[in-house]
Amino acid sequence: MPLSRDQLDIYRDRGFIFLPGLFTVREIAALKAEQARILAEPSDTHLRADSGEFLGTTAMERVSPLYARLLRDERILSIAEQVLGTDLYCHQYKIILKEPFGDLSLPWHQDYAPWVHHDGMPQARALSIGIFLDEVTEFNGPITYIPRSHRAGLLDYEVLDVPGTTPIPSLPNATVERLIAEGDIVAPKGPAGSATVFDSCTAHASGRNLSPYPRHLIYLSYNPVANAIENPSRPTHFASQDFTALSAAPASALLAADEELTALS
Amino acid sequence: MPLSRDQLDIYRDRGFIFLPGLFTVREIAALKAEQARILAEPSDTHLRADSGEFLGTTAMERVSPLYARLLRDERILSIAEQVLGTDLYCHQYKIILKEPFGDLSLPWHQDYAPWVHHDGMPQARALSIGIFLDEVTEFNGPITYIPRSHRAGLLDYEVLDVPGTTPIPSLPNATVERLIAEGDIVAPKGPAGSATVFDSCTAHASGRNLSPYPRHLIYLSYNPVANAIENPSRPTHFASQDFTALSAAPASALLAADEELTALS
Repeated sequence: MPLSRDQLDIYRDRGFIFLPGLFTVREIAALKAEQARILAEPSDTHLRADSGEFLGTTAMERVSPLYARLLRDERILSIAEQVLGTDLYCHQYKIILKEPFGDLSLPWHQDYAPWVHHDGMPQARALSIGIFLDEVTEFNGPITYIPRSHRAGLLDYEVLDVPGTTPIPSLPNATVERLIAEGDIVAPKGPAGSATVFDSCTAHASGRNLSPYPRHLIYLSYNPVANAIENPSRPTHFASQDFTALSAAPASALLAADEELTALS
Repeated sequence: MPLSRDQLDIYRDRGFIFLPGLFTVREIAALKAEQARILAEPSDTHLRADSGEFLGTTAMERVSPLYARLLRDERILSIAEQVLGTDLYCHQYKIILKEPFGDLSLPWHQDYAPWVHHDGMPQARALSIGIFLDEVTEFNGPITYIPRSHRAGLLDYEVLDVPGTTPIPSLPNATVERLIAEGDIVAPKGPAGSATVFDSCTAHASGRNLSPYPRHLIYLSYNPVANAIENPSRPTHFASQDFTALSAAPASALLAADEELTALS
């Protein structure tokens, strides 16, 4: 199920596209249950702020067959293949938690900046897909994008420390001001199961969660095998070194296999 | 120009009412110009975070004839008198700045909590009016209210330090969760010149300004003369000790006098 011609035009023009309700309520319920299990187990792949705030977890494909299948789900992998036009592997696969009343807030940045800065990714040819595990509203810290900000490619950055994760190379205020004057700001909001596909150079940021409702998001980042990272400086749960090309699986495989596993366990 | 019967019912039911475009573009331009002049002058009534971020200024009636007239403007004072039904004075009169890309973010609180905690205000009978000096959008840190949260009166609080101002007695997460489950969350947004009238027990919070546009707000707090504070512990620019009853002036007086002053200066 790749994008329609119109959707592809929107993606190329704006650097992102919002796809409401891409996954079903039943699929999201299974992904959330599995997430709860993973977060309950201690792991050095979890992300925590100095305050103790639980910020997320990484390398989902290693710890969960269900999440490993999601990575190959045709509903997302076919879009990434269509946009990038080549064999892909998964560079980064994480869940970011904005817990109720949490403090996590992210500065304006392009994802490609940390990927070149920390990991030595040769070119800005990757993309990410963010999948809502919870309804996203204006109150729980939606990701805010600047349309068309991907067009200039990698912009000059300054490296900001963000407690609980590796430093984030971020955009200077003057750059963001110019980008927003040209492209405006958009924060996609919608039900759990919705997804946003965005270019590795699309500038985005988010504020804190003012609400009593969680905002948990899955982030899958696909990169061409031919663009594999060349100078990794971080543990592999931040930047995978398994460059095997992924092959798509039908949407029907996501829960079917999970139910088999559940029946066997 | 007090509230209509329907508007008054909304205010009493929800604990706040949003009045888009209450002041004119010309009036807002004059108030903003005057604000810029005030902020440019050093004063111990300004509010600054430890980081140096400029958070606001207080005691507007002392430093500006234009702002002193605004306090008596019938468009707001008549509403406060209608709701509170008695002679009023001004307890607190400030401008809070959310500068472009600023960090200022405020926890969930009821204004009456600091007023009883720091100032010894006898009863929760005051209200505030927030006037937008800039357009307020979902991206520049709008104030978020919990409808009907004023009904329980003062709730138990915990005192949080907020750099740059006096500590804010804030609502525990469990309390906010319950209030939102009962009342939902609303963030009024609109053009400069819009205003929100809210009860001193209406819970509110706000996130940081992700945008390159300022979000400057005037806050006027009116309190019955008969409810004057009895145990002040803060400088008077945080809590006035001038309990003289205010008398309303016509809307036409706001700029007319200003223009006279300008002509004389």
